[in-house]
Amino acid sequence: MPVNLSAPDPRTLLPVAGVTLGIAQAGIRKAGRKDLLLIRLDEGARVAGVFTRNRFCAAPVVVCRQHLSMIDPGHGVRALVINTGVANAGTGKDGLARARQTCTEAAQLLGGTAAQVLPFSTGVIMEPLPVERIVAGLPQCIAALKANAWGEAAEAIMTTDTIPKAVCRQFQIAGATITITGIAKGAGMIHPDMATMLGFIATDAAVSQPLVKSAVAYAAQRSFNCITVDGDTSTNDSFMLIATGRAAMPEIVDAKSTEYAAFRDAVTAVAIQLAQAIVRDGEGATKFITVKVESGRDADECRKVALAIAHSPLIKTAFFASDPNLGRILAAIGYAGIADLEVEGIELYLDDVLVAEHGGRSPAYREADGQRVMQQPEITVRVVLNRGKAATAIWTCDLSHDYVSINADYRS
Amino acid sequence: MPVNLSAPDPRTLLPVAGVTLGIAQAGIRKAGRKDLLLIRLDEGARVAGVFTRNRFCAAPVVVCRQHLSMIDPGHGVRALVINTGVANAGTGKDGLARARQTCTEAAQLLGGTAAQVLPFSTGVIMEPLPVERIVAGLPQCIAALKANAWGEAAEAIMTTDTIPKAVCRQFQIAGATITITGIAKGAGMIHPDMATMLGFIATDAAVSQPLVKSAVAYAAQRSFNCITVDGDTSTNDSFMLIATGRAAMPEIVDAKSTEYAAFRDAVTAVAIQLAQAIVRDGEGATKFITVKVESGRDADECRKVALAIAHSPLIKTAFFASDPNLGRILAAIGYAGIADLEVEGIELYLDDVLVAEHGGRSPAYREADGQRVMQQPEITVRVVLNRGKAATAIWTCDLSHDYVSINADYRS
Repeated sequence: MPVNLSAPDPRTLLPVAGVTLGIAQAGIRKAGRKDLLLIRLDEGARVAGVFTRNRFCAAPVVVCRQHLSMIDPGHGVRALVINTGVANAGTGKDGLARARQTCTEAAQLLGGTAAQVLPFSTGVIMEPLPVERIVAGLPQCIAALKANAWGEAAEAIMTTDTIPKAVCRQFQIAGATITITGIAKGAGMIHPDMATMLGFIATDAAVSQPLVKSAVAYAAQRSFNCITVDGDTSTNDSFMLIATGRAAMPEIVDAKSTEYAAFRDAVTAVAIQLAQAIVRDGEGATKFITVKVESGRDADECRKVALAIAHSPLIKTAFFASDPNLGRILAAIGYAGIADLEVEGIELYLDDVLVAEHGGRSPAYREADGQRVMQQPEITVRVVLNRGKAATAIWTCDLSHDYVSINADYRS
Repeated sequence: MPVNLSAPDPRTLLPVAGVTLGIAQAGIRKAGRKDLLLIRLDEGARVAGVFTRNRFCAAPVVVCRQHLSMIDPGHGVRALVINTGVANAGTGKDGLARARQTCTEAAQLLGGTAAQVLPFSTGVIMEPLPVERIVAGLPQCIAALKANAWGEAAEAIMTTDTIPKAVCRQFQIAGATITITGIAKGAGMIHPDMATMLGFIATDAAVSQPLVKSAVAYAAQRSFNCITVDGDTSTNDSFMLIATGRAAMPEIVDAKSTEYAAFRDAVTAVAIQLAQAIVRDGEGATKFITVKVESGRDADECRKVALAIAHSPLIKTAFFASDPNLGRILAAIGYAGIADLEVEGIELYLDDVLVAEHGGRSPAYREADGQRVMQQPEITVRVVLNRGKAATAIWTCDLSHDYVSINADYRS
């Protein structure tokens, strides 16, 4: 059961002018489930993305990067093809050929060139992509294309997700009402610098290509790069932002304008909500944990401390057990790799409860208070380093028996 | 059930001339278990140690370092006091006072100064050390002192260990038969740069103080710093080497002599066996995994790749399930943080089975072969980077349901 997360009501997921979506049951890994999604873009849509930094990055990631460099991504991208079941990662040259074949076939059906199609895959690593099933499924996707299919699209990209993840919000920017609708998938292998995570956000806002690119990087850094389920960074992570420019507004072209700031913040808000949904549906998650680190010298040291806490299996199992065994948090702060950290100055809070100060347990701390907070489904760990002005937040979940079960049985 | 590990036969644990051991049931956390150990050294024993680098290091670690700097460790150390149950870490100034009081009381009972006593603790973090129970237990330890108590001593330092860990071996060095007997504890919070890990090795070899110090660092780097159970680095780790000099041999004083090399390698061999025993008894472990990384440019990059594999919860759960979901290993290699890694050159082996090459699955690989190896209780993952001459090995275990159970319930 995900933590305080329910499936979005499809009626709340507004279409984005210039985007249609088609879903198929292509039988890629298992029969009878939605596993192929085509996102069709009208001409002129602007697209930018960020991808995994994993050196064993998947074939579709390589092909996406190539295609974006071959065409004008401010006009040329006409379709995105996403399959689940097989990740097409760790598949060498043959994997690249299969990813390219997906694009070639889609281009033949839709018109245009292969470089105008971007491929995405998620699923098991090191298995060959059954490209013939994707090719066979594409006409079904095209026949199904419609604007009002974001809910189904969110379902079609799920793997071990238990709930589809979709967010839609409207904003007033430059006098126009713009719509931002996004979907994401991911539940394990989630880690900063992305994860087995796919995110697609579309908006009808009119924004220049450089600013679409800038906004996607900004939003990723504050959303998908701030979540961790198990510390594993996937081979396939991709987060794409599509701006169709169909809203009745002047194009945003100035990076210093208030309009750009409003657009960037709106995209970031949607991305954060999607990213947090991934953690809430983390494999086996029973608790949603926010780790805040404040008063650090710089963002880097805050992030190191937050990740040490968020990655510790000992801390994550204590959250699972609702056991305020909070010394484990001090231990994680201590091994975060900050050589000159003076532990005497650090304060540790669990929600509003002061747990530790002056290098040890606070005299004010009562186990009953820690116990009360630990039993909540949402908990904030706050570490005050008291040596600077930087701060960061990381979102994670606990480590439960179900995480082990899910990952022990994933392929069966 | 630990992996291929059984309790040592106490009769095989030979005494070390110049060392006696006394155990007590001091009721530090729970009644009716051995939880206090006194190691008494005859005058002239040489002692050196390595300690955790955790910034929240425990009070006993701080006091050990101070005492070793205050006295001549080549002659002055007369006793080590080790308690389990409470780690005396994250306890601030009060924790330091309690660790010092332990030493003062022991010195009063044994003669000598507090600085000649070294304290060690392991157990729950951020709980006050019940020093009054240690003080009350010390006379019981002293009354029980005997040379032939290494087996009981190994039991007295256990926490979540299911089996005591002790190793004894004899070597011929400089014409004499020397004895090396060691004990260790640790089962979770195990990580390179040490863990909730205590190790004590004693020998009757005659070795100069600088070379005892040099040998303990050399052995730690190749044993306790090469194991990981869950990636957590503890606050209390300590590994001590005691050389009593009672063997009939000339003192080893030359770091370049063959005698020193033989001594150092003998100590390292015992330390490796103890370190591997910790992993074999890792919390919830059902498999013993050796991760070898070869043909790297330098030891650092080999270690990064090995640790990325050894820390991945996804890989560790796949080992638990005997599921050859080996693409997860490629993903871990890819996110190990080596920016210029060319994945095309990498070979991945599971024991003798070639799994991946040329950036993907090897054409020669058969799932049945991977399945066969995965079902073994001992597995070697071998990654050949093919870009240099460096190599490293890390030992770890799988991640099972029992790991979650043990750590969810540790304090209860």
